Parts: sequence; structure tokens; C-alpha cells
Amino acid sequence: MPKVIECIPNVSEGRRADVVESIAAAVRGVPGVRLLDHSSDPSHNRSVFTFAGDAAGVTAAVLAIYERAIPAIDLRTHKGEHPRLGAVDVVPFVPIEGVTMNDCVALAKSVGAEVAARFGIPVYLYEEASNNPARKNLEDIRRGEFEGLAAKLADPQWKPDYGPAVPHATAGASIIGARMPLIAYNINLNTDRLDVATKIAAAIRQSSGGFRFVKAAGFELKDRGIVQVSMNLTNYEKTPIFRVFETVKREAERYGVSILESEIVGLVPSAALNAAAEFYLQIAGFNPEQVLENKLREP
Amino acid sequence: MPKVIECIPNVSEGRRADVVESIAAAVRGVPGVRLLDHSSDPSHNRSVFTFAGDAAGVTAAVLAIYERAIPAIDLRTHKGEHPRLGAVDVVPFVPIEGVTMNDCVALAKSVGAEVAARFGIPVYLYEEASNNPARKNLEDIRRGEFEGLAAKLADPQWKPDYGPAVPHATAGASIIGARMPLIAYNINLNTDRLDVATKIAAAIRQSSGGFRFVKAAGFELKDRGIVQVSMNLTNYEKTPIFRVFETVKREAERYGVSILESEIVGLVPSAALNAAAEFYLQIAGFNPEQVLENKLREP
Repeated sequence: MPKVIECIPNVSEGRRADVVESIAAAVRGVPGVRLLDHSSDPSHNRSVFTFAGDAAGVTAAVLAIYERAIPAIDLRTHKGEHPRLGAVDVVPFVPIEGVTMNDCVALAKSVGAEVAARFGIPVYLYEEASNNPARKNLEDIRRGEFEGLAAKLADPQWKPDYGPAVPHATAGASIIGARMPLIAYNINLNTDRLDVATKIAAAIRQSSGGFRFVKAAGFELKDRGIVQVSMNLTNYEKTPIFRVFETVKREAERYGVSILESEIVGLVPSAALNAAAEFYLQIAGFNPEQVLENKLREP
Repeated sequence: MPKVIECIPNVSEGRRADVVESIAAAVRGVPGVRLLDHSSDPSHNRSVFTFAGDAAGVTAAVLAIYERAIPAIDLRTHKGEHPRLGAVDVVPFVPIEGVTMNDCVALAKSVGAEVAARFGIPVYLYEEASNNPARKNLEDIRRGEFEGLAAKLADPQWKPDYGPAVPHATAGASIIGARMPLIAYNINLNTDRLDVATKIAAAIRQSSGGFRFVKAAGFELKDRGIVQVSMNLTNYEKTPIFRVFETVKREAERYGVSILESEIVGLVPSAALNAAAEFYLQIAGFNPEQVLENKLREP
């Protein structure tokens, strides 16, 4: 199988189309890298770029993003609803195919060191790349935002993993790490009772005692007269989609409610869908090499 | 998405490794074509080659197989358990990605005409490429085998679609066509009662009133003390795996028997597994473009 790493930098610019397009063009210009998607949110004043390639390719693409973002973005005047610490705020590396999480951790560290050395930007490592249990969670690292960054960096507990213990004047700091692919997954229920969706969300999410790799909340879809359990699945290998689906289905029965449908928002790794087919069809001894398309992609 | 056609020629040689290897090497030598598998059965005296590529690539690979097979194989002295009409016995083209069944039908016809013109071999079109409902089924076309071929070709009802109405002296005739991918799928039952597997096989297969695109038989797995419903699914779009699985499960309940496991033998198209995930997870509005690996393969 080819070696494929996905990278999803979050950049603090979501209003000026010329800046966003210049960054997208920089990614497209890197050989061996494919820009899969980019989207901007003006109220957040933030853009998300999704691309994939091998280690050398995604490294070159990340550095190209910094080259474009640093002169164009000034955090001292940046306003937006989404919390941010830097111009290139968050850079996760995600193993997709033929690479391990350890490979992505090593990549996060080498890119973090390079960003600090080349641009003078303090870098925090996060999630699987974190060297410190207290500095694993993105929200904890970002707390205080750019405006509180100088004070945070001066705290010995928040000495950055790479680079100076003072903010880059305009680009702040960056948070670079490795994580599993995230699947945005919603289940719509055959009811307009928000309390049912809310209770099921509480039952399945880690924060209130549910599955370790599930974040969930209940919402009303008022135009359709139904409710939704909206989820992020943060590790589909350890908390697979089918287990979450079956648990939601069983919990809903408790209230006399059934599942209307589910939906996957955005991209999903093939392996996450195959795992559902394996489970329900009780397939024994399944090997990803049996999937015709995987054979076709072998180098 | 890239354009991918699978081709699975069946060649009447399964004992002489040098001949088989020479044919495999010819396929490997065609640019843009990937040889995915080849296997030989000495008792059948027959080899199956599986490769994929675009229309120009698979055409070149098929012609290369004839170039090697014709001088090496003489049907007048060929013996084997498997029925056969020619040295290159059967050549199916299968749509995998970015191509329609109509594209594969057109390809079967152009390759059939070329084989007849270049090598003087009579060619019958079969399955989706057939021009004649009475000559659609492979077994019907092959009945009489090489030994009865001269008489068959002389019958006006069996005039070949391309080429002379007399056999090639050593290479016989060829059967060239287009079909959907075939999935070899078995379901193992938690019982040693062969009659249960046999009755379920009869319930689900087309020939005795079941699903249109299912061939099935019951077998004993004596070493494991269980029985198996062994199937070929000949059109996974119209008769999907999950529907067959659920029907077998329900029929088994009738006898107090449960499903132990199922197994996919050999290759399976990604879309066939995704359809099972969509069904069981009740995914609404699923688009193959959401599968990350499909995005990566776009040209």
C-alpha cells in the first residue's frame, strides 16, 4: 500500500479570499501532495485546509503554508469567534494508509522543530505527539488565546516544546500534533423530543461516562420536526461506528423512539466503513488486501 | 475517478509453469496494466489471470496473452477436468470504476473482432455483450467443448460473432464478454446438518426461485463439523450482499440454526462493502466521494 498521511492545518484567516487562495495554491504546488478540500468561515475568521501525501510531501506543504500565512496574517488585529493562538493555529497529522500513529508523531516533532527554527515561532505538541499529559488536549493548550500567550509562555509549565518562550510578534504560536482521523457522524431520530437526543448523547459520550472516543450533543432539526444526536468519533478503530450506532439504537428504544437515518459529514476512511460491513455480515478473516481498490493502489 | 476495467482471462494450461509464467510476464509488461493475481489448477489444467487497467491497457494485455498462448497450447492434446472450447477459453471484461457496463460491452466487441481478425479464431460474445438471448450463458456456449466445436460452428444457430465458422486448428474458439464483478461469498452455519445448508441454498438461488444474481449450493465442512452455504453473487448492485445475508439468517432461524460467520473469498469491490455499511447504519445521502481513499485516487 502507498504511504498516505493526511494533514489538516487550521489557519487564522477566513475573510480575505486572496490570502486563502494563495495558501491553497501553495499546497497545490507541492509535488506528490493532493489538496482534498479547503473551507473558510468568515465569522470564525478561520480556514481549514485538508491535504494528503507522503511524509516529505506534507512537510513541504506545511512549510509552504507558513511561508504564505506569516506575512499575510497579523494576530494583533485578527478578530473572529473561534479561539486561536497563532496565524497557523493547529496542524494535525493523521495516519491514513501504510503509516502508523508513531510515524505521524515523529513527523509532528520534526515539523514542529523545523517551524520553530525557520520562523522563530513557539510550538506546542498536542494529542498523540504530546510529551506531557497536561499538554495533550488542544483546548487546554489554546486557553488564553493569542492575547494571553506572552504570559502563558513565561510560565515554566507552559514552556513550548520547540522555539522561543515568547510569542512571534504577529504569528503567535502553533500547536502541532498527531491524531486519528475524525469522523463527523450524526444519527437522526424519529421524534421531535430534544430530551431524548440529549439523554442519548450523554449516554454515549466519554465526558459523561460513555465511549472513550465519542463527543456528542443533542440538537433539534426544527425544519424537519426531528432531533439529532450529533457526534465526533475521534478513533474509529477503538470506538467503531457500528458500536455507537447499535448503542444509540438500543437507548432510543428505551423511549419508544427509532432511528430514522444516520449521516456521515465529510470524509470517512474506507476502513471505518469496512469495519461495519465486517461486523454486520460476521465476516471472518477479512483482509484489506481483498478490497479490489486497495490492490489497485499498491505501488 | 480513474477509469478501471478488470479482465479475468481463463487459459487452458494449468500444468506447465513455464507457459503460465510466460503469459503472466506478458501481462506485467503492458504499461498501465496491473496483474492482480494468477492461479493455476493442474487437475483442471487451467489458469486464471486477473488484471486491471484502462481500455487501451487491458486490450493490449489480452492480445499479448493470445500471442503467448496460441503457439504454446494445443487443444488437440489438452486434457483437464474443466470444460473448455479454446486455448484462451473465456475473456470477461468487468467495470470497476469510472466506466459503465456499456463501455465494457463495447470493449468486448472490439477485442473480439480484433482477436478474430488477427489470429483467425472464431469468437462468441457472452453475458452482457451477447447479441442473442440464446447465446448469453457461458455454459450453453461451451457445451460440446473443443471436441464438438467443428459441428457446433457449422450449425447456423452457432455461427460465431466474429471470425471463421471453423475452429482454429489448435486454439479452438474464444468466448469474450462483459459482466459485473463476481463475489465468492460463503456463510457458515452453526450446525452439522447438511440438509439445512442445502435447503437454504435452494431458497436463495435464482435457479430454484431465489434472488436473481445468486448461485448457491450447500456443503459440509467435515473437519469443522459445520455446514456452509457457498455462493457466487453475480451482480452485487442488484442483489447486494446484505440482502442475501439477512435472508440466509432468517431462513436458518426456521431450523433453529444461527450464522457462525461469513467469508469473502478473493477480491471484493469496495462499493459492495460500502453498501452493507450504508444499509446497516441506515446512512442517508452517502456519496462514494466521501470515502477518503476514493478522493486520493482521483486523477
